[in-house]
Amino acid sequence: MADEVVLLDRWPSPYCMRVRIALALKGVICEIKDEDLSNKSTLLLQMNPVHKKVPVLIHNGKPICESLIIVEYIDQVWNDKPSLLPSDPYQRAHAKFWADFSDKMVCLYSMSLLTSKREELEVATKEFKENLKLLEEQLGDKHYFGGEELGFLDVALLPIITGFKIREIYGKFKIEDEFPKLFAWANRCLQKESVSKSIPDQEKMYGLIVEMRKKLGVK
Amino acid sequence: MADEVVLLDRWPSPYCMRVRIALALKGVICEIKDEDLSNKSTLLLQMNPVHKKVPVLIHNGKPICESLIIVEYIDQVWNDKPSLLPSDPYQRAHAKFWADFSDKMVCLYSMSLLTSKREELEVATKEFKENLKLLEEQLGDKHYFGGEELGFLDVALLPIITGFKIREIYGKFKIEDEFPKLFAWANRCLQKESVSKSIPDQEKMYGLIVEMRKKLGVK
Repeated sequence: MADEVVLLDRWPSPYCMRVRIALALKGVICEIKDEDLSNKSTLLLQMNPVHKKVPVLIHNGKPICESLIIVEYIDQVWNDKPSLLPSDPYQRAHAKFWADFSDKMVCLYSMSLLTSKREELEVATKEFKENLKLLEEQLGDKHYFGGEELGFLDVALLPIITGFKIREIYGKFKIEDEFPKLFAWANRCLQKESVSKSIPDQEKMYGLIVEMRKKLGVK
Repeated sequence: MADEVVLLDRWPSPYCMRVRIALALKGVICEIKDEDLSNKSTLLLQMNPVHKKVPVLIHNGKPICESLIIVEYIDQVWNDKPSLLPSDPYQRAHAKFWADFSDKMVCLYSMSLLTSKREELEVATKEFKENLKLLEEQLGDKHYFGGEELGFLDVALLPIITGFKIREIYGKFKIEDEFPKLFAWANRCLQKESVSKSIPDQEKMYGLIVEMRKKLGVK
């Protein structure tokens, strides 16, 4: 029996992007259901009754929740394709540490883009840039965070690419100038169809943020 | 060459307790260095320059940070003892989901015990009890969350035991009466020396909270 794979998704969610990228890298055929988060489906409420959030991967009827846990699950189940996580325990812990860092630091800044006033954004931008600096040091001269190929940390971090234009405009800095290695990494990743088809383009994301800030009355 | 294992520790930290329990369950001989967090050691700042927090496990000179990542590392490296994480991908994702839940929900409540006024504690206690209910449902009639033996989620969750007395006093409810299955689980776990020697007793934790609330001027 073929695997039945369904993703409860929301296109602008960085957490959902991670799962879409991992599925694409592994070549998993999957039905994607875009959720209306203002009117959550019965299926979402049934499958993630604790957090009631996307993404949820439903594999042969069983739900898996939380983006990094889902990416690890995909990596373990579809193991005919190259591994995202290294098998060496130390390298594995290292990749997970930085993926967790990207959760705590980078995604929080994404939220601040939505809800912070322009003057508060300056503080958030300063911190964000310090974090990008740490990440760029981790990348070093490697092609990808995973080395020669995309790995777990690349997948965890890739959604930040979709916010580069937004950050340039609200944060008043050019990623290309200040973080040339990260910029080159982003372009290398976007050349891969599994990445480019799995994440929305920067213009679309920028439009959404402008619209949502307007709706929320943030200036 | 024998393994050199050092834990940068702080005795009342629930995150450090997880690591101490995992090390004890695996029978790892380890030098424990209790950190003074108001005057962090050079070693801590060197080994965890990003977050500057305990716990840090230093294994043959290499640091591993973040409690759940450390527990997983220990599980993978010292694999001559029974595994904490199941090998089945779905069961594994399930254990990780609930460990992450215990991070987000239970540990946040521990912080509120420190800094919230008594009236705010009522709201936090209500939410805490709803979360305990979900956890008790997960335990069901099993001996441990891991089944017949302690598993990853047991290790992640065990530190809450040390706060039972505190919660009874500040939250005005008896764990024993309202969550009898969790109470029985806690007692079963405490009968294991690897657990009881790795976590402080409830009286000591209660004393610390009273003292810290006094210091912070919270009433």
